[in-house]
Amino acid sequence: MVIDMIETAAIGFALAVAVLALIYLVVQIGRVLGMDNGNQTMQEIAAAIQEGAAAFLNREYTFLAGFVVVVAIIIAVFLEWQIAFSFILGAIASGAAGYLGMFIAVRANVRTAAAASKSLDDGLRVAFNSGSIMGMAVVSFSLLGMTILYFLFDGDIRYITGFGFGASSIALFARVGGGIYTKAADVGADLVGKVEQGIPEDDPRNPAVIADNVGDNVGDVAGMGADLFESYSGSIIAAATLGAVVADGVGIILPFLVAAVGVIAALIGTFLVRADEGASQEDLLGVLRRSIYAASALVLVFTAAVVAIIGVGWNFFAVVLVGLVAGNGIGWFTEYFTSYTEKPTQGIAQKAETGSATLIIEGLAVGMHSTLPPVLIVAVAIMLALWLGGDNGLFAVALAGVGMLSTLGITLATDAYGPVADNAGGIAEMSDLPDEVRDRTDALDSLGNTTAATGKGFAIGSAVLTALALMAAYVQAANIDTLDLLGATMIPGLLVGAMLPYLFAALTMTAVGKAAYEIVLEVRRQFAEIPGIMERTTKPDYKTCVAISTQSALREMIVPGALAVVVPLFIGFLLGAQALAGMLLGAIVSGFVLAVMMANSGGAWDNAKKWIETGVMGGKGSDAHKAAVVGDTVGDPFKDTSGPALNILIKLMSIVSLVFASEFGAGLLNMF
Amino acid sequence: MVIDMIETAAIGFALAVAVLALIYLVVQIGRVLGMDNGNQTMQEIAAAIQEGAAAFLNREYTFLAGFVVVVAIIIAVFLEWQIAFSFILGAIASGAAGYLGMFIAVRANVRTAAAASKSLDDGLRVAFNSGSIMGMAVVSFSLLGMTILYFLFDGDIRYITGFGFGASSIALFARVGGGIYTKAADVGADLVGKVEQGIPEDDPRNPAVIADNVGDNVGDVAGMGADLFESYSGSIIAAATLGAVVADGVGIILPFLVAAVGVIAALIGTFLVRADEGASQEDLLGVLRRSIYAASALVLVFTAAVVAIIGVGWNFFAVVLVGLVAGNGIGWFTEYFTSYTEKPTQGIAQKAETGSATLIIEGLAVGMHSTLPPVLIVAVAIMLALWLGGDNGLFAVALAGVGMLSTLGITLATDAYGPVADNAGGIAEMSDLPDEVRDRTDALDSLGNTTAATGKGFAIGSAVLTALALMAAYVQAANIDTLDLLGATMIPGLLVGAMLPYLFAALTMTAVGKAAYEIVLEVRRQFAEIPGIMERTTKPDYKTCVAISTQSALREMIVPGALAVVVPLFIGFLLGAQALAGMLLGAIVSGFVLAVMMANSGGAWDNAKKWIETGVMGGKGSDAHKAAVVGDTVGDPFKDTSGPALNILIKLMSIVSLVFASEFGAGLLNMF
Repeated sequence: MVIDMIETAAIGFALAVAVLALIYLVVQIGRVLGMDNGNQTMQEIAAAIQEGAAAFLNREYTFLAGFVVVVAIIIAVFLEWQIAFSFILGAIASGAAGYLGMFIAVRANVRTAAAASKSLDDGLRVAFNSGSIMGMAVVSFSLLGMTILYFLFDGDIRYITGFGFGASSIALFARVGGGIYTKAADVGADLVGKVEQGIPEDDPRNPAVIADNVGDNVGDVAGMGADLFESYSGSIIAAATLGAVVADGVGIILPFLVAAVGVIAALIGTFLVRADEGASQEDLLGVLRRSIYAASALVLVFTAAVVAIIGVGWNFFAVVLVGLVAGNGIGWFTEYFTSYTEKPTQGIAQKAETGSATLIIEGLAVGMHSTLPPVLIVAVAIMLALWLGGDNGLFAVALAGVGMLSTLGITLATDAYGPVADNAGGIAEMSDLPDEVRDRTDALDSLGNTTAATGKGFAIGSAVLTALALMAAYVQAANIDTLDLLGATMIPGLLVGAMLPYLFAALTMTAVGKAAYEIVLEVRRQFAEIPGIMERTTKPDYKTCVAISTQSALREMIVPGALAVVVPLFIGFLLGAQALAGMLLGAIVSGFVLAVMMANSGGAWDNAKKWIETGVMGGKGSDAHKAAVVGDTVGDPFKDTSGPALNILIKLMSIVSLVFASEFGAGLLNMF
Repeated sequence: MVIDMIETAAIGFALAVAVLALIYLVVQIGRVLGMDNGNQTMQEIAAAIQEGAAAFLNREYTFLAGFVVVVAIIIAVFLEWQIAFSFILGAIASGAAGYLGMFIAVRANVRTAAAASKSLDDGLRVAFNSGSIMGMAVVSFSLLGMTILYFLFDGDIRYITGFGFGASSIALFARVGGGIYTKAADVGADLVGKVEQGIPEDDPRNPAVIADNVGDNVGDVAGMGADLFESYSGSIIAAATLGAVVADGVGIILPFLVAAVGVIAALIGTFLVRADEGASQEDLLGVLRRSIYAASALVLVFTAAVVAIIGVGWNFFAVVLVGLVAGNGIGWFTEYFTSYTEKPTQGIAQKAETGSATLIIEGLAVGMHSTLPPVLIVAVAIMLALWLGGDNGLFAVALAGVGMLSTLGITLATDAYGPVADNAGGIAEMSDLPDEVRDRTDALDSLGNTTAATGKGFAIGSAVLTALALMAAYVQAANIDTLDLLGATMIPGLLVGAMLPYLFAALTMTAVGKAAYEIVLEVRRQFAEIPGIMERTTKPDYKTCVAISTQSALREMIVPGALAVVVPLFIGFLLGAQALAGMLLGAIVSGFVLAVMMANSGGAWDNAKKWIETGVMGGKGSDAHKAAVVGDTVGDPFKDTSGPALNILIKLMSIVSLVFASEFGAGLLNMF
């Protein structure tokens, strides 16, 4: 009875916080849209990007709507209608957050360019505010959806897992499709524009330039947002599932409370972001870092209050602390390995002296090397959580994941602002704004590159904790007593699981290649067949490039996407629940390391090129720069397509398994 | 009592077979050394290679002797003197096999060149015979050492594990040091010779040309031989350890018997290798394949006889069959993914049209994709072995590994012959032999490239089965009852384990870069300071390049080498036996996939370049060829250093754990 009161109050509090965040959203949207949106040219370019983004999302969501309906029917028939309902709600909530984030991002870009005409701080504020809309949309929609379901289904978490599955499905296609789109457009535009025609980046004569700008948003706003929406929802669901038996049922509400106080902390943190004119890269990074650290500190204070009020053990406070420290630690090391102010990336650039081959070898070596710190951090965090959790060890691991993600409202903001600044630079370039404006947007863009790399490290780390927690929840739900490593199907399961991330990465990399090739052909065709493009007398046909990127990205995402849904079901039904647990674990550990390597190699190559562009080793146009461009191109699908898609793979396979946990049993091929 | 008689007879039979193989060795050595060793120039070049190879091995073995003595003392003090004795014998046996193989290889190269002056068949026979000396030395020395220890220690397999550890230690340094040497010399020679000075490969004016030729032998003869010596010994030890309780003790002798009949089958197979003049690449490959398939068939016939005579279940015959089929299956798929007559490699080459970046992306994608078949094959083989083995499932897995390696005497021969043919081509080039001779050695060399790729796939597959069997033996020896996947230290162990192959690969790739850079500086110095090299009036100073390669390879192998020995001990003593089991399993599954990817990407890039060199896409010197050279250079440390070194990493860590299994307990940091 007392628990019931606490439960109602706690979930009600979380719901109220979600509503509060919604109010922030409405206010912030009004502010951003109310900003000056530049001159005629700027508005035209922005309109083309908006149109392209809308075209992509509309087609993607049309496809997804079909997918969601089919899967919902399957769930309703084979499992329960409540899960199907949650599934649909999760898909809608994730989709809505992505749509809103994109909607704002493609409108904030031109406003950032206009604001940067006034001052660096104005530019930063517009870009960051639009990023915070994405961040807050993700956490508030997620929390809102799950708390409503909680009340609706009287706290039965099993039904709410459907919400996570729905969010995962959207995330899969948003990340994979978006990742293919963004790199296909980028590579395609570069290969013909820069290499063959010798025109600079973001040149309006390039027919693929709008597709490239759309791609930045599709990948890093909608894709990243959906990825973290999934992690955020999944970590809460996993912790609540495992928490049902913890501390007389208080365990089930603790994740919601930690998430809720995190939203408040993030809200406060967003108000700390402002920059002085002439601020250096270091200063700007300091500004963002300070706001994230402040939010982290606030989460701890609030969590302490929560622990005191609801009267659970202080060990759970320590667990949240472990999660927060781990998340920030991973971010710090990611930055170390990928920032060009540090040795690893400079070392890659220096290898350009002996050509692109040695630069690529060094980049791969740095990426591989960079897996050490995040793996150790996650391993130690898990051990600490298990130790602190005592009998509730697995719940503690899941709660650490919630802690890591609690400040997502602001960490995602620092990330989602990147493409806005990138686009703002493109618009400034295309509409011939003064050089000082471009310098300011470049400063913002360069900052965005660093935060994007950090954000990727954070996304991977949280994906691993979430996936592990979901797997633990799956094991519980499937009634598996012990998972004997030397059991009959466990090692085969682990082997197959460890291979899946490689297969998934191979498929997505090949997909980028195919899609980029179609863009290359179209751009070449336009240069050949439309007279006057190079002389600026005729505008190229941007729309066809956008349409081709959209079509090919959606087509190419289907096979890897289906793989992620079908393989766990296939293994589970054929070889049984034990084999599936092995496969999940193999995929999680192997996918973690591969994802970190791909993201960091890619980020480091990108910044090695940027470092050379600052003038070292001969600067732009030198042989060293050419070698670095090759590295950057190899890194593009690494860091923006395949690497991030692995986060989704491991989480989605885990949640599919959790949703269908009760159905697998010993498997059809029950040899043992 | 009856068992004792059977036991003595069986081990005695294995010993007799080992002696028979020794006799074959002596005869074959006499035949190869008795061949015509060419004209004065050829002999001089060969002498330089022989001298360089001897210099490397002498320095390496001096270092290793110190290492072996120190470790032997540690083992004697902390464990038992018998294990230390076996350890030393294992190290000596592996070292002796490697030394003999190298000794012959660097003498057979010039004789192959001389024989190729007569006919293709003569050349093939000399090269293949020298390869078969390496193959037979490995299996006979291993079998001889272990059977002698068996009689000495009255069948106590625990003592004989030391033999495997000794072999592993040699393998580690031979593979890692050899891998660094061969690629540092190769890359260093190419970067200055081909790229800066514009002289062809194998040009005697290149100061690093002898070091490059020495490197081929150091890496692919001594390194590969030590690798497979370890797999061969390890698989027998693991199976015998697990077999002690199988079929009233007959399980312990079955692996020795399967290995012994395999030696006989391989011996017969070697007599089937001969080629007609004008034989195509396909024909030559057919010749080698036919002899391997014949040996495999013979192993099955002989194993059937063994099973009938000693009266164990026919299910064990089926297990050996599974192992053989799996090994050949992995070889087949490796060839498919890396041969330029097939789609994947041609697809990589075609990407050269849009530059080196797209070619590299495609190569990585093909390498990742190629992990699917071997993983599925091994997973299915393990499940079949577990199913066939019933209560003795893990023994059956180990026995499948013995079956896979039973024909090693001949499979290794087809592999070790590669560098001989490669060197023969170099000698033909440097001593201006007629073009038809070079054409013949090129045909042999090209064949060697294919067999080398197949051999690498086979080496990895067998390493995985061996490592898994050793890990299972470790779990038994450490008295671990169940390995609960969700236990406190298991997931952290798996995570750290999965990361280790990446760290190891990163360290070895960086090592190649550093060592190659030292060669580059020396070669540049010689071209600058020694007048008349380019005009062929002065000979370059080959010896200094050999000395630098030797020094840097030995220096760079120490850190990754120590890592492989120290990390399992550290984890075992700190976190306990359970965590170590998790770590081993994580390393095995992750290392398997990464090793396959690296080996196959590297092999495919190499052959993509070779395909372009046959004249497609503009042929040699075209832009496509230049792009393919970049891919090939990236692939060099992949396929010849880091990828193969991962085999050793997973086996060595497993056997270190097995040897120290009784000492770990719950770990010092016993938090749980």
